[in-house]
Amino acid sequence: MITAGIVGGTGYTGVELLRLLAQHPEVRIQSITSRKEAGQPVADLFPSLRGHVDLSFCDPAQARLDQCDLVFFATPNGIAMEQARDLVKAGVRIVDLAADFRIKDIAVWEKWYGMTHACPELVAQAVYGLPEVHRSAIASAQVVANPGCYPTAVQLGFLPLVEAGVVDTAHLIADAKSGVSGAGRKAETHTLFAEASDSFKAYGAPGHRHLPEISQGLSRAAGQPVGLTFVPHLVPMIRGIHATLYGRLKKDVDLQSLFETRYANEPFVDVMPPGSHPDTRSVRASNTCRIAVHRPQGGDTVVVLSVIDNLVKGAAGQAVHNMNLMFGLPETLGLTQVPVLP
Amino acid sequence: MITAGIVGGTGYTGVELLRLLAQHPEVRIQSITSRKEAGQPVADLFPSLRGHVDLSFCDPAQARLDQCDLVFFATPNGIAMEQARDLVKAGVRIVDLAADFRIKDIAVWEKWYGMTHACPELVAQAVYGLPEVHRSAIASAQVVANPGCYPTAVQLGFLPLVEAGVVDTAHLIADAKSGVSGAGRKAETHTLFAEASDSFKAYGAPGHRHLPEISQGLSRAAGQPVGLTFVPHLVPMIRGIHATLYGRLKKDVDLQSLFETRYANEPFVDVMPPGSHPDTRSVRASNTCRIAVHRPQGGDTVVVLSVIDNLVKGAAGQAVHNMNLMFGLPETLGLTQVPVLP
Amino acid sequence: MITAGIVGGTGYTGVELLRLLAQHPEVRIQSITSRKEAGQPVADLFPSLRGHVDLSFCDPAQARLDQCDLVFFATPNGIAMEQARDLVKAGVRIVDLAADFRIKDIAVWEKWYGMTHACPELVAQAVYGLPEVHRSAIASAQVVANPGCYPTAVQLGFLPLVEAGVVDTAHLIADAKSGVSGAGRKAETHTLFAEASDSFKAYGAPGHRHLPEISQGLSRAAGQPVGLTFVPHLVPMIRGIHATLYGRLKKDVDLQSLFETRYANEPFVDVMPPGSHPDTRSVRASNTCRIAVHRPQGGDTVVVLSVIDNLVKGAAGQAVHNMNLMFGLPETLGLTQVPVLP
Amino acid sequence: MITAGIVGGTGYTGVELLRLLAQHPEVRIQSITSRKEAGQPVADLFPSLRGHVDLSFCDPAQARLDQCDLVFFATPNGIAMEQARDLVKAGVRIVDLAADFRIKDIAVWEKWYGMTHACPELVAQAVYGLPEVHRSAIASAQVVANPGCYPTAVQLGFLPLVEAGVVDTAHLIADAKSGVSGAGRKAETHTLFAEASDSFKAYGAPGHRHLPEISQGLSRAAGQPVGLTFVPHLVPMIRGIHATLYGRLKKDVDLQSLFETRYANEPFVDVMPPGSHPDTRSVRASNTCRIAVHRPQGGDTVVVLSVIDNLVKGAAGQAVHNMNLMFGLPETLGLTQVPVLP
Repeated sequence: MITAGIVGGTGYTGVELLRLLAQHPEVRIQSITSRKEAGQPVADLFPSLRGHVDLSFCDPAQARLDQCDLVFFATPNGIAMEQARDLVKAGVRIVDLAADFRIKDIAVWEKWYGMTHACPELVAQAVYGLPEVHRSAIASAQVVANPGCYPTAVQLGFLPLVEAGVVDTAHLIADAKSGVSGAGRKAETHTLFAEASDSFKAYGAPGHRHLPEISQGLSRAAGQPVGLTFVPHLVPMIRGIHATLYGRLKKDVDLQSLFETRYANEPFVDVMPPGSHPDTRSVRASNTCRIAVHRPQGGDTVVVLSVIDNLVKGAAGQAVHNMNLMFGLPETLGLTQVPVLP
Repeated sequence: MITAGIVGGTGYTGVELLRLLAQHPEVRIQSITSRKEAGQPVADLFPSLRGHVDLSFCDPAQARLDQCDLVFFATPNGIAMEQARDLVKAGVRIVDLAADFRIKDIAVWEKWYGMTHACPELVAQAVYGLPEVHRSAIASAQVVANPGCYPTAVQLGFLPLVEAGVVDTAHLIADAKSGVSGAGRKAETHTLFAEASDSFKAYGAPGHRHLPEISQGLSRAAGQPVGLTFVPHLVPMIRGIHATLYGRLKKDVDLQSLFETRYANEPFVDVMPPGSHPDTRSVRASNTCRIAVHRPQGGDTVVVLSVIDNLVKGAAGQAVHNMNLMFGLPETLGLTQVPVLP
Repeated sequence: MITAGIVGGTGYTGVELLRLLAQHPEVRIQSITSRKEAGQPVADLFPSLRGHVDLSFCDPAQARLDQCDLVFFATPNGIAMEQARDLVKAGVRIVDLAADFRIKDIAVWEKWYGMTHACPELVAQAVYGLPEVHRSAIASAQVVANPGCYPTAVQLGFLPLVEAGVVDTAHLIADAKSGVSGAGRKAETHTLFAEASDSFKAYGAPGHRHLPEISQGLSRAAGQPVGLTFVPHLVPMIRGIHATLYGRLKKDVDLQSLFETRYANEPFVDVMPPGSHPDTRSVRASNTCRIAVHRPQGGDTVVVLSVIDNLVKGAAGQAVHNMNLMFGLPETLGLTQVPVLP
Repeated sequence: MITAGIVGGTGYTGVELLRLLAQHPEVRIQSITSRKEAGQPVADLFPSLRGHVDLSFCDPAQARLDQCDLVFFATPNGIAMEQARDLVKAGVRIVDLAADFRIKDIAVWEKWYGMTHACPELVAQAVYGLPEVHRSAIASAQVVANPGCYPTAVQLGFLPLVEAGVVDTAHLIADAKSGVSGAGRKAETHTLFAEASDSFKAYGAPGHRHLPEISQGLSRAAGQPVGLTFVPHLVPMIRGIHATLYGRLKKDVDLQSLFETRYANEPFVDVMPPGSHPDTRSVRASNTCRIAVHRPQGGDTVVVLSVIDNLVKGAAGQAVHNMNLMFGLPETLGLTQVPVLP
C-alpha cells in the first residue's frame, strides 16, 4: 500500500486525481493540502466524491508530507519547485503535474514561464513522465515531471513518424484543440460558460508554453532540433484534446503498420483501423490515447489524429500510470475504467 | 459467474449496460443481439468499448438466449413482451429496461403505449425494480420491470413524504428535466444538436408515458390514488435528470430527518445536507441518486430536488443493481464508480 | 434623435444594449462609461461590435451624462441609486436595468439586497417598466425601473390568471430556468464553462432576490398579497429563460381565450396555439415573450410555459421598449429583429 | 421590389434565408416550396418566424416560380440542376445555395457528388458567387453558384497570400472546424445532441466534397493548380466555421498590410489587428468574415485564422449579398445585423 499525499487538490487535476486514487486498490491518501480550503471536507467542494473520499483539506504545515511514499503536486506552476527539495531529501518520491520539471533547458523554461527557477538541480534529475518513451527511467525516478496535456497528445501522434525519420521535421504542424477544463478551475472571464460556449477560437498562436515542451520531446526523438508550428484552440466541451498533426513525408512507408508496431505493447495507446476518426468522447474519463493516421489522396502529407482526455491521459491518469511504474505495480492498475459514452 | 444476454444493444441503455457489465466481476456476457447490426463488432459501433468488449452483435435467432441465466432487454417498448414468455419457460430470468412490464393495469398501459399487450400474465408476475421499495421481491423475481428514468428520480424524491403521509397527495407537482440521451439514439430531428443545443423547452405537458408509472408507484405508497402534474423538459446536456418536486405540507415535520431516516441504509441514495442544491454532474456516470429537501421561507410548500444519471440509476445501473439482488451478490458490486466531474 | 448615455457597459446587458441601440434609428449614444476600461474602444472588448460601435469607454467624470436625454444604468445593483439624484435634478430621464428602483418597500429591498438604500424618494417616484402593465405611466416617467429577467417571464405568464382571479393566489409555483448569461460577465467559479456545461441544478431554493419583485407585481394584480414558491435553475445555455408556472384553478375558464385576449394588443407577447411548447431559442436575440397555457388531463392545475431571451425582453430590449414609450416613438422601433434559429 | 421564390425552405439555410429576407426592405417572398410540408404555415415549423413570415409552404407545382425575378434554391445537391433550365428560359435569375453549379469541371463534380450532372451548360454559364472575387460577373449573372461554407472561409483566408504569390501553393493546409448546423437539418444519428455534444472529432480526412471547390478557387487565383490538404472537424456548437490555415512563406512580406490592403473595400471582410484571435461568436448571425494573420516566432510558416457564420456568410447571407449585386442594390442592404454576442 502506497501512502500518498496531494498538494493542491482544489483544481480539476486534483479532483480527477482523487477520483482515480479513490478507486485504486494500492493507494492510501494520507493528506491533501489547500491553504485556502483547510478544514473543509473535500466532498463539500466536490459532491461527486461524497461517499468515496472522507478527507478534509489540511494546511500544508500540518500535512506531514515527508512521511508519504509519494507526493503528487497538483498545483499551479512554480509551487513544486519550492517544496520539492525538502521532500526529496526526506526520501519522498514526487510526481509534479505542473510544468516545473518538464523543460531541461532552464533558460528556456524561465523565458516561457516568466519566473526564476528555484530548483534547477532537480530539473536535471527529473524524468519526463511519458511512459511510452521513458518507461524504465520512470520506474527508478525520484522526481517525475508529468507531461502537459497538449504535449501528450501531440508527441504520441508524432513520435512514430519522427522516430522512423519519415517526415520533414523542420516543418511540423500541430493544430490542437482542447476542452475548457484545460484552462483550470480558476475564475476568469474568458472561460465563463457564456463566453466559451457555442463558439470556437484559436489562442496563443504567437506562442504557447507547451511549444518548448513538445519541441524538446520531438527533438530528442529526432536526434536534432525540430521545427514546430503549434496552434491551440478552445473547444466548447469540458474534457478532451484533439490534435490534428501534419507532416511532409520524405519517403514512402506503410503508415498504419508503422503506428501499430510502435504502440503494439502500449496499454494506453490505441491505434485505430485505417480510415478512422477518433472522437474525444471515445476516451472520456479514461487513460487511453486513440490515434488514426491518414494520407489524404495518397499525397505526401501525412495527417495524424490523436485524442486524449486532458484530465486523465493528459494529467491525473498519466500521473497514476507513472506511480504504478515507480512502485512496481501492474501498469494498468486502477486505470481500467471504460470511457463514458455518450 | 452469471451468464447474461442482452437483447438490443445499439441504443444508449445498451452501450451503458455494456460499460457497466464489462467492469462487473461476476458477469460473463454471452451474447448481444441486433438484427440490424448482426456480425458487426460492438466496438466498431462504440469505439469507447475497444479493448473492453470483444463481442460482435449477433442475430437473435443465433443468440441461444435460453441458455443464459439472465437476459436484459434494452429494446424499444413492445419487444420484451413478445419474447419473454419463452425465456421464462426456459427458466431464464429477465430484466426489461423498457416499459413492457411496469404498469400493472393493462388497460392503462395499452392506452399510454398505444398497443395491445402481448403478455399480460407476466405483467402480473413481474416485480417493479425499484430496489428502495421492492428489494426483497426483486431478489426472488423471475421478471423485473426496470423503472423509467423520470419515475426513478420522481418517486425517490416523493416517497419519504408520501409514505409518511405529510403532504397533500391530491396535488403533487413534478417539474422534471432530462438530458437529451433520454430520448434515445434514434435519428430524429428534434434531438439533433442544432435543435436541442443552447435552448430549453418543456414537452409532453398534456401527458407523458411516465405519468401513469409514477402515479402507480406513489399511489401504492400513499395507500390511495394520488393526483400528479408532471411536466418534463429537455435540457441541453447529454446525461442527467433533475426533478424539482412540490407538495403542500399537511403537518409540521422535520423534513431533513424524515429523508435521512428513510434512506439511511440505501447505498445508492444520498440525502444531502440542509441547504444543498445537487447538480446532475455530481452523479454523472454513477448509480447514485442525490436528494435535497427545502421548505422555502418556512411556508407550507416543500421542495425536493432529486438528481440521477438517467442512463445509470435511471436505466442500466439500476438494472445491474437488480441483477445483483436477483443473484444474491453484494448490492454495490460493479457499481462503485466515482462520478465523473467535471 | 435621442441622446443617450450608458453607465457600465462592460457586462452582458451593456453589450446587448449596444447591439440594439446601434441598430435603432432614433438614438445617438453620446457616451458609455467604465472606470476600469476607460480609454479602451468598446469594439476591442466586444469584437462583435467592430464596424457598428466606434465609441471608447470613458471615465464617468468625463462623460457629461447630464447632457443626455436619457441614461441607461447597466450597472451592478447599488450604483444607480447613488448617481440618479443628480441626473434627475438635471432633467435627465433614467432607465435602470439593475434592481435599485424595483421594490417599493424599502425595508424589503434592503433585506434582500443587503444594503441601505441611498435614494428612497426616487423609488417612490420610479415606474416599474413592465410595459404590458404600466404602459402609460412609463410614457411620462422620469425614472423607470427595468424589470428583472425572471420577474418578466414569470409575471407575464401569471398575470392573465391573477388579474382574472381564476387561480388560488396563495400557492403559486414558479419553476424557472435561466441560461448562464443571467449570472453576468463577472469571473466566478460556478459559472465557468467546465462547471456549468453538461449539467443542471437548482439554486436559491431558500430564497432569491427576484422573489419579492415578482410577489410585488402579482400582489398588485391580485389586489392582495400572493403566496409564491420560486425556484430558479441554471441551464447550460447562454441565453433564455423558461418559466414553468403552476396554479390551482378556482373556477372553470377558457384559458386559451383568457391569454389571447389579455395580450391581443401587445406587440411583444405571443400567445401560442393550444398544445404548444415554446422553446427558448424561438425568441433568441429578440424582444418577444412566447407563452403557452396547458391544463393537463383537464384537471384543476393550470400550467403556463413562458419564454424570453433574458438579455432582451429580460433586460436590454425591454429597456429600449421603455425608451420608445418614454419618448413617444413607435413601440417596436429598433426591436423588430427576427429571432436567431437555429 | 424583387419578387423572390425559395425552393426547399425546410432546412437551416432555408430558415436563415427567410430570417434575412423578412428583414430586407426590397424583397417580397412570393412563394416557398416544400413537397413534404405543402400547406403548412412556415411559422408552424419555425416558431421563430411567427409574426415575421406569414407564408405557408406550397407544392412546387403550384408555386409559379417562373413569375419570380429570382429563385433561391435551398435544396439538397442535385435538385437545382433539374429545375434550373426551365426557369432560366423563363428569364428567372437563380441563386443556388447547393453545389450543383460550383465546380466547372463536370467530371470532377460527378466524381465527388456521385451523380450525373443534369445541366452542364448552365455550369459553364454560372458565376461562382464569392463577391470578393467575382463581384462584377455576379452583377450580370443569370445563375449564381453560392459558395459552400468551408470554401468561403478557407478561400477568403488564403486569397491574399495566393494572389500575391508569397506562399508555396503546392502544400497548403486547411484545418477547418464547423458547427453542427453545417450538417443540415436532416435526422441522422451522428449529429444527434447526445453524439455531437461535449466531443470533438475530425471527419472526411481522406477527402471532402469541399476540397475540389476550394482547390478550383485557389488554383484560379494562383494561376496554376494548387495542392491542398483539407481536414474538416465537427465542433459542438450550432453555428460558425473556424478555418486555421497554414502555408510556407516563399518571400518576406508585411502580412498584416497585405491582408488589410486586399480587403480594404470589402464590406463583409474584417481584417483584425495584429495578434488577434477571432472567435466564431463574434460573427454569429452576421454576414461578416473576420480574419487574423500570424507568423509564429517569426518563422516561415504563416497562420491565418478565418471565421464566418456558416449559415450567413457561408450560405444565406452570401446569397442575399449576391442578390443585392445582381439587382443593383446597395451591397449591404438587409445585411447590417450586429452579431449576437454572447
